[in-house]
Amino acid sequence: MERPVVRVGVIGGGFVGTALVQLLLDPTRHAAIVDGATAPLELVGVAVRDTSKPHPGIEAALLTSDVDGLLSNDLDVLVEVAGGIEPVRTYLETALKLGVSVVTANKALIAESGTELAQLAHDNGADLFYEAAVGGAIPILRALRSSLAGERINRVMGIVNGTTNYILTKMTSGGSDYASALAEAQALGYAEADPSADVEGFDVAAKVQILSTLAFGTRLSGDEVAREGITGIRAVDVEYALRSGYVIKMLGVAERVGETGVSRRAHPAMVPARHPLASVNGPMNAVFVEGVKSGPLMWLGQGAGGEPTATAVLGDVLDAARNRVSGRHDVPFSGDTSLHYVPAGELSSVFYLSIDVLDRPGVLSDVAGIFGRHDVSIRSMDQSGFGDEARLSFLTHRALSSDVFATVEELKASASVESVGACIRVIDGVFE
Amino acid sequence: MERPVVRVGVIGGGFVGTALVQLLLDPTRHAAIVDGATAPLELVGVAVRDTSKPHPGIEAALLTSDVDGLLSNDLDVLVEVAGGIEPVRTYLETALKLGVSVVTANKALIAESGTELAQLAHDNGADLFYEAAVGGAIPILRALRSSLAGERINRVMGIVNGTTNYILTKMTSGGSDYASALAEAQALGYAEADPSADVEGFDVAAKVQILSTLAFGTRLSGDEVAREGITGIRAVDVEYALRSGYVIKMLGVAERVGETGVSRRAHPAMVPARHPLASVNGPMNAVFVEGVKSGPLMWLGQGAGGEPTATAVLGDVLDAARNRVSGRHDVPFSGDTSLHYVPAGELSSVFYLSIDVLDRPGVLSDVAGIFGRHDVSIRSMDQSGFGDEARLSFLTHRALSSDVFATVEELKASASVESVGACIRVIDGVFE
Repeated sequence: MERPVVRVGVIGGGFVGTALVQLLLDPTRHAAIVDGATAPLELVGVAVRDTSKPHPGIEAALLTSDVDGLLSNDLDVLVEVAGGIEPVRTYLETALKLGVSVVTANKALIAESGTELAQLAHDNGADLFYEAAVGGAIPILRALRSSLAGERINRVMGIVNGTTNYILTKMTSGGSDYASALAEAQALGYAEADPSADVEGFDVAAKVQILSTLAFGTRLSGDEVAREGITGIRAVDVEYALRSGYVIKMLGVAERVGETGVSRRAHPAMVPARHPLASVNGPMNAVFVEGVKSGPLMWLGQGAGGEPTATAVLGDVLDAARNRVSGRHDVPFSGDTSLHYVPAGELSSVFYLSIDVLDRPGVLSDVAGIFGRHDVSIRSMDQSGFGDEARLSFLTHRALSSDVFATVEELKASASVESVGACIRVIDGVFE
Repeated sequence: MERPVVRVGVIGGGFVGTALVQLLLDPTRHAAIVDGATAPLELVGVAVRDTSKPHPGIEAALLTSDVDGLLSNDLDVLVEVAGGIEPVRTYLETALKLGVSVVTANKALIAESGTELAQLAHDNGADLFYEAAVGGAIPILRALRSSLAGERINRVMGIVNGTTNYILTKMTSGGSDYASALAEAQALGYAEADPSADVEGFDVAAKVQILSTLAFGTRLSGDEVAREGITGIRAVDVEYALRSGYVIKMLGVAERVGETGVSRRAHPAMVPARHPLASVNGPMNAVFVEGVKSGPLMWLGQGAGGEPTATAVLGDVLDAARNRVSGRHDVPFSGDTSLHYVPAGELSSVFYLSIDVLDRPGVLSDVAGIFGRHDVSIRSMDQSGFGDEARLSFLTHRALSSDVFATVEELKASASVESVGACIRVIDGVFE
């Protein structure tokens, strides 16, 4: 059977773009890439900001700085691995309006404008795929969209940020404090000079929103995600967790609340040491899915890096190419279900709190009184250090989060308290 | 847009069939199951051996013992969850010749006749899907077929048999010996009265063949798989492994050997305790995939059970339904690549051997001499027990497996040796 060629253009010549170009042009892979359902892929061009800069691994003849020229060059599939919101969003809108399928790794853009882009794709008979936006090489999005399409999912819980996982792993296994673990991550290129997008949870929040869409069919863009970062976590918190049979992980969580609600959160949590997520270390990512009938499922893999990410992009390109060849497109998986957002404060959890206190009689009574006034019941208390270092560590019973947050506020204002350190949710039970 | 109905028939009214029927008929799931790309699913009938027997969970009006009647009832998709080779193979051939898409969980049948059935499906414009045949609820086959289609995979290594994993987990965490762990598995329904299909590795071998097809594009049926069971593993071997930083797992392995070879094996192995597969316990399954560019990936989930397996079957049914609605079928993923089978003896590995010996001088020298004559170099030796219980435990350096097998044969014949216990490969390094 004679088939047309599928014409692919790429925006972005960084690590992922370069790795993708090499995969697409590798002659030893062609048999595997182009199966009976795919037409041969033709790489039309790679748009970069400055073609005069060296782009090792990409033939100079492929480079262009003229994105509009690339878009109007009869493309079938446009790959975007440049990042940022504008001008990328405009490029993708232009492509979709031309009926060109789009593959992107841009989680920030999808979290902000995914629903609109998906609708635009559908209206123009094109696909919008973004597997690489969550979990790097891990093919979790397609699994949620396809294999688990008939399953009712209760919760998705992921380690989806390599930077924070690297920092927390260093603090757990090496005993580093936060500042030196961050500095090491920066030296190794795992963290940016300005690390706030990672350590404050913005990156995780964007991914939670995407996971929530595919797990529950909620809107893809602009929805609320509760967000807490890891900057307040200290070596003493990590030690306490280890002594108590937990490890601290930065999690993205999307879960059903009752029949009509959904909670979306990005925050650190104490995970039981025997939970499958607890042993996901360093730059690895993992997504843990709890289905009503499937039971627990977990995906594990490299969350970042040019080549791992490029394999996820390539999988999307092949899907888009197969659809081109058979003259169809996937129906977007977004926005059908109206689940209302449940603010984090309305959910209950066990909490760990670490409080620096004045070393004098009556302090514990003051502090315990504050817990009691907010209906937060204490499960265990640990006192450590002396003088300026005096510290109380608490595990609560399951309590309403808003009550715990109010407790923290009153603790901060108390004359007995120097400062409130970490306030971290505890995941109780392996599959809770 | 008006769409037709997709008519689904089921063969098999056991745990999986019943769970599937309940999923298909659950009104609260319909919105999720029938998305914009799927037509409504209509359950036409469920074929069982004896309709007079009670089948709780399946409406009596759906039951039939007339499979041919079911097949000729204008089906779109036939689901087979009955098991066994005949008469099931004939039913599936009849369905495919009628252009009916087939979804099956039957790993034995696919391992024996998969290539022929896939060809028959293709020739008749139908699909053949079998996600539930490997790893129960884990959507690994679709991931290999789709997301990783462009990736070059070097090795797939799986814990894909819940019975042996339950037994080995019991021996590892509870200190049970093999016989009592097996008895417990039988009492709980995790092992059959005749456990040989599981404990001798036949079940794993069938799954290895299927994984090999999807990872490397080799033939789907009738290919050779080297097979060793777990019946010779003793409590002392499990203890030795734990002391040395390993756990013993029953693995299915499919791996490239050089550019043109492939090895397929089912055997127990010592896995480093920090390897992600090491903490996959009890009835859980996991598949670990090593891609050249993606790096390591792992899938974890329930390997058996009616409801988990039914979710994988349902994912296939929905895929087949989407293809029906869009008038296409998937191109079968089988038999294109000619990799030659490399017998297990031609591969090198580190081995652990446990040998019961006579407690008298000169024995170690005799035994060491036998290793030496076969070019198997000893990395470490452990002597334990006295009198009738005297035992030598060896770790070899990396050695050619055929040399190790020959060593075992000569040891068995030696006057110094009472019996050779376990001979188990050691996986060295987390990502070896």
